[in-house]
Amino acid sequence: MPAVPAHPFDTAIALQADEHAHFIGHTSPAYANMIGPFGGITAATLLNAACLHPARLGEPLALTVNYAGPVADGPFRISARAVRTNRSTQHWSMELEQGGAIAATASAVFAARRETWSATEIGFPQVPPATEVPINPMPARVAWFKQYEMRFAEGGMPDFRIAPPADDSTAHDTTSTLWVRDEPPRPLDFASLAAICDVFIPRIFLRRRRPTPAGTVSMSIYFHAGSEQLAAQGTQPVLGRARAQHFRAGYFDQTAEVWSPDRHLLATTQQVVYYKE
Amino acid sequence: MPAVPAHPFDTAIALQADEHAHFIGHTSPAYANMIGPFGGITAATLLNAACLHPARLGEPLALTVNYAGPVADGPFRISARAVRTNRSTQHWSMELEQGGAIAATASAVFAARRETWSATEIGFPQVPPATEVPINPMPARVAWFKQYEMRFAEGGMPDFRIAPPADDSTAHDTTSTLWVRDEPPRPLDFASLAAICDVFIPRIFLRRRRPTPAGTVSMSIYFHAGSEQLAAQGTQPVLGRARAQHFRAGYFDQTAEVWSPDRHLLATTQQVVYYKE
Repeated sequence: MPAVPAHPFDTAIALQADEHAHFIGHTSPAYANMIGPFGGITAATLLNAACLHPARLGEPLALTVNYAGPVADGPFRISARAVRTNRSTQHWSMELEQGGAIAATASAVFAARRETWSATEIGFPQVPPATEVPINPMPARVAWFKQYEMRFAEGGMPDFRIAPPADDSTAHDTTSTLWVRDEPPRPLDFASLAAICDVFIPRIFLRRRRPTPAGTVSMSIYFHAGSEQLAAQGTQPVLGRARAQHFRAGYFDQTAEVWSPDRHLLATTQQVVYYKE
Repeated sequence: MPAVPAHPFDTAIALQADEHAHFIGHTSPAYANMIGPFGGITAATLLNAACLHPARLGEPLALTVNYAGPVADGPFRISARAVRTNRSTQHWSMELEQGGAIAATASAVFAARRETWSATEIGFPQVPPATEVPINPMPARVAWFKQYEMRFAEGGMPDFRIAPPADDSTAHDTTSTLWVRDEPPRPLDFASLAAICDVFIPRIFLRRRRPTPAGTVSMSIYFHAGSEQLAAQGTQPVLGRARAQHFRAGYFDQTAEVWSPDRHLLATTQQVVYYKE
């Protein structure tokens, strides 16, 4: 009986422990960006290193990834270190190294969570269900776009062939709201949720409506859901909403939410992004 | 002529390089919290280590601090390492160690910024000027409260002597909006702005209106202002606004903004906070 081929996401984040207790990975052509890998797959791979480590306790609560330098096509090495283990939390530091240079650093907090009083203060976006929002084909030149099914309710990829307004006097809004899932479908877990936190196209594209070099410098994710809640999502699309707050002197920030179709907040995330104008 | 005594904030974040190129600091009674130091002063001290390092280039752009364990009254040691230096950004990793254990980790991105097209997408809060908002005396049992002048336009410290509603059916809102400055006044800089990003009382206090053990686990800050813009603020109060988005299974998140009186967004910040119910 032939083996079921691995999902491309699992292939992309796969790591092998070496004899020095480091993890060896390899970039995946399926998740290539314009230059280097999709930032979300790098985040998922760094998180995966801590998840795979035999010393790991609990589930992901927080993840910060700093994109320190370019990652070239090929192998890389990740070191993951439990810097502190407490009764209910564990703190991790990770580094991704390639060709003798550090290309990314990350920190993660894992927690053994227990049920308490809970509440959500922000509202679920007003949006039609996924089945009523058409799938938006994304530009074919970016490989990783093909790994996601995206249905934009608002704020999709602008058509750069249409000239933007000559001045910035129009009140633009950079909010994107979209249903998104892995393509082909894959059950949601912490690693895929981490990657989905980075699927939002650079807000500067929406604001300026012209091609602008841009790249994430640092991203933080807070996981609000537990593994059972993520497993219960199965392969359903999740709802992402992202917006910029401020653009200045070559950097802008982005804040985003990821919701389940049954209106649970799965993750909140922020990033600061370089842009060249 | 007697020397001008140092501001307590500068004393609290002061570091001395030791013979191993580490920095030695000491907790400050003025910035003590209920247990251990105020998280904002720890963040400012970790940022200060990178700022003081002779290899440092550029100005702070992003800072993440992970509060890994308790910090006891007394000395501590910070190591700061430039993990990657690029043409316009530099990535740092810091660790705060005390008694052989790591009590905090941090990462920072510094950047050489240059002027570009800029824009702010979120609105300045509707709030009276600082002079028209009364100063709120904060509980005397927390030392660090005395180091800030706080004028709450909304969402001040609740009076725990007043019994909260028996159920959670009331629609509470955890937004706090306040004018805040160092006490005594001190010119704003990156370190004091980092500390101000953590002055917001735990959102669970506002939501549940009863004393609840709570502590920040991880905080990220994006600095939107440059050093000249911060220096131009002088000792004026800045406007902070914070709110929670989600509470679940022992952890909630908080998102916040810090504005100048002339309506410039100086920083945006997020944190994830442990709570015990």
